[in-house]
Amino acid sequence: MARLIEYEEAPPEVRAVFDDIKRTRGVPDVNNFWKALAVDPPLLRATWERLKAVMAPGALDPLTKELIYLAVSIAHGCTYCIASHTAAARARGMDARMYGELLAVVAMAAQTNRLAQALGVPVDPAFEA
Amino acid sequence: MARLIEYEEAPPEVRAVFDDIKRTRGVPDVNNFWKALAVDPPLLRATWERLKAVMAPGALDPLTKELIYLAVSIAHGCTYCIASHTAAARARGMDARMYGELLAVVAMAAQTNRLAQALGVPVDPAFEA
Amino acid sequence: MARLIEYEEAPPEVRAVFDDIKRTRGVPDVNNFWKALAVDPPLLRATWERLKAVMAPGALDPLTKELIYLAVSIAHGCTYCIASHTAAARARGMDARMYGELLAVVAMAAQTNRLAQALGVPVDPAFEA
Amino acid sequence: MARLIEYEEAPPEVRAVFDDIKRTRGVPDVNNFWKALAVDPPLLRATWERLKAVMAPGALDPLTKELIYLAVSIAHGCTYCIASHTAAARARGMDARMYGELLAVVAMAAQTNRLAQALGVPVDPAFEA
Amino acid sequence: MARLIEYEEAPPEVRAVFDDIKRTRGVPDVNNFWKALAVDPPLLRATWERLKAVMAPGALDPLTKELIYLAVSIAHGCTYCIASHTAAARARGMDARMYGELLAVVAMAAQTNRLAQALGVPVDPAFEA
Amino acid sequence: MARLIEYEEAPPEVRAVFDDIKRTRGVPDVNNFWKALAVDPPLLRATWERLKAVMAPGALDPLTKELIYLAVSIAHGCTYCIASHTAAARARGMDARMYGELLAVVAMAAQTNRLAQALGVPVDPAFEA
Repeated sequence: MARLIEYEEAPPEVRAVFDDIKRTRGVPDVNNFWKALAVDPPLLRATWERLKAVMAPGALDPLTKELIYLAVSIAHGCTYCIASHTAAARARGMDARMYGELLAVVAMAAQTNRLAQALGVPVDPAFEA
Repeated sequence: MARLIEYEEAPPEVRAVFDDIKRTRGVPDVNNFWKALAVDPPLLRATWERLKAVMAPGALDPLTKELIYLAVSIAHGCTYCIASHTAAARARGMDARMYGELLAVVAMAAQTNRLAQALGVPVDPAFEA
Repeated sequence: MARLIEYEEAPPEVRAVFDDIKRTRGVPDVNNFWKALAVDPPLLRATWERLKAVMAPGALDPLTKELIYLAVSIAHGCTYCIASHTAAARARGMDARMYGELLAVVAMAAQTNRLAQALGVPVDPAFEA
Repeated sequence: MARLIEYEEAPPEVRAVFDDIKRTRGVPDVNNFWKALAVDPPLLRATWERLKAVMAPGALDPLTKELIYLAVSIAHGCTYCIASHTAAARARGMDARMYGELLAVVAMAAQTNRLAQALGVPVDPAFEA
Repeated sequence: MARLIEYEEAPPEVRAVFDDIKRTRGVPDVNNFWKALAVDPPLLRATWERLKAVMAPGALDPLTKELIYLAVSIAHGCTYCIASHTAAARARGMDARMYGELLAVVAMAAQTNRLAQALGVPVDPAFEA
Repeated sequence: MARLIEYEEAPPEVRAVFDDIKRTRGVPDVNNFWKALAVDPPLLRATWERLKAVMAPGALDPLTKELIYLAVSIAHGCTYCIASHTAAARARGMDARMYGELLAVVAMAAQTNRLAQALGVPVDPAFEA
């Protein structure tokens, strides 16, 4: 089980990252993931800076990015990541029907991925274009 | 390498599925995946029927579904699936910027998933709600 | 791509393992896997000795063991392993219908595994007994 | 943690699936997996219908299918799936010796799969036949 | 949840392995992993004998081997293995800075692995040499 | 198959990254991975900047970092990554015996990870300290 660093006991460089997370997300406290990552301040900073840039609105809207993040977390079987990104996707607008369809697509992909691997299907020339 | 069943040599129940795929997608021939799956006609039919239902428009639009499918295929490391769903996502509107952002989200998730697993982060009570 | 050690160039401790594989399986030459593993003779010997013991007939018959081996190789997405264990399962009696059913079970498991992970399903008390 | 839908609170289309599971398996209640999947009734129905067809006796007997299902669940690292399919395999006749041999095969495959991937072993021409 | 076989209830062939583990590692009791594996005495013995040989000092020192073991366990997402090999690596000298750097490398590899898979990068000729 | 961006056709922001890679590593050209990643210049820059920081000497020496990177790439089954990091580890001093021992540890971890997952081994209280 992770050691969680709370704000009160955190060194200044950790507090600075926690403050930025709270300000960016408008939340009163950071999630356990960040408290656990705080055991290594440079890793904490680098992870947060990159996450903030990657998840900012761009050509893909924030909800779509969260759905992709959640789908990958399910494929990896990461319990914490599934829980946190299911919550994040809901907060960004994922309703029950969208969630059911996401599950169906992830389950479909898991199934056809194994079939394609088992059969050793050669890539269609049209896909290389 | 997969044995690929071409339309000409296919038994009637395989031809019926191939015909439905071509009609539904408006394509002159089916992809290698379906030709490989045709070695087992019941599995071919069941896979196609379910795929058609899952990928139909619903609460999530077809492009979003393809992005999720592609993200899972990348997480599974399935070469054929990555190639075919990259092509499918492009056909549904994924441009270069969207692709770059999808890659960034998938790579970010791969990274934070490993960190959460390594640290054994406990799920925040707020995520259980 | 692997460096493959052929019998002619192999040192005595590698030849001894190759000879045992050929004798045990009744084949004129060993597969590429063993030729590749021969770059490290102690690893070659340990892997072969353990494989021979694990795959010998026991409470599970050799075909059932090969089906399990193949299923795991598909789940891992290992191209070489899928190819070699599909061939081995066929040599031990897997026919086209059995292969189709194995694929269907593997695809089903891939699908329900992702759903159980996504939903965070708690283990039923009855399963703990 | 999953929200579990109990029979009493379930809508008619969910009850119909639950009834079919109980009838088919001769059990007084469905497992948590189905109660969790009931948050999306169409996904519940599609998953059950397919599972029932895939796990029915065919060219492979039900125990062999359960062993394959369990092996894939272990390879995926899905805690719930391992628990439920270990119980199901036991109910279908897997005894302690068979279980030990299944574990040995799964562990062996995990090991040789990584070695084949690490070494980049080329597929033997004989396997392509 | 695993059934754990304690020393007192263990048959002689299990006790012999437990004794060797305790002697080799200088510990008063074996970890839960070995107690769980004891349900199958031949698998217990084979796993321990191989582990002892693999982790002995050689061209790589014991700490480096533990770091590699831990990295693979994180990549597989195995909760128990991450916990036990984090403890083992610490016992062999992994301090907080080394742990932070290990996490950073594992996270980096997870990220670039997905990017290489997504992009289908062809292997550089120089790597084949 | 990836589209590879060569230096001559690359826009200025890609050339700047390529120049930094060549300077840092003392090589005449960048690997295919970077040429493929160049389809998305911001992702290219972020990945390189982070990689350069992570792989710099620190509490772990560069060879140990490469061994960890290679081990994770094998666990993920990423063909390109295995090829490139095997070459990189060799360039940093990994000889044949070290490579054999790395393979043995990775294979051992793959094996015991599956066993621990299959058995549902509870984490020892001592590991939580």
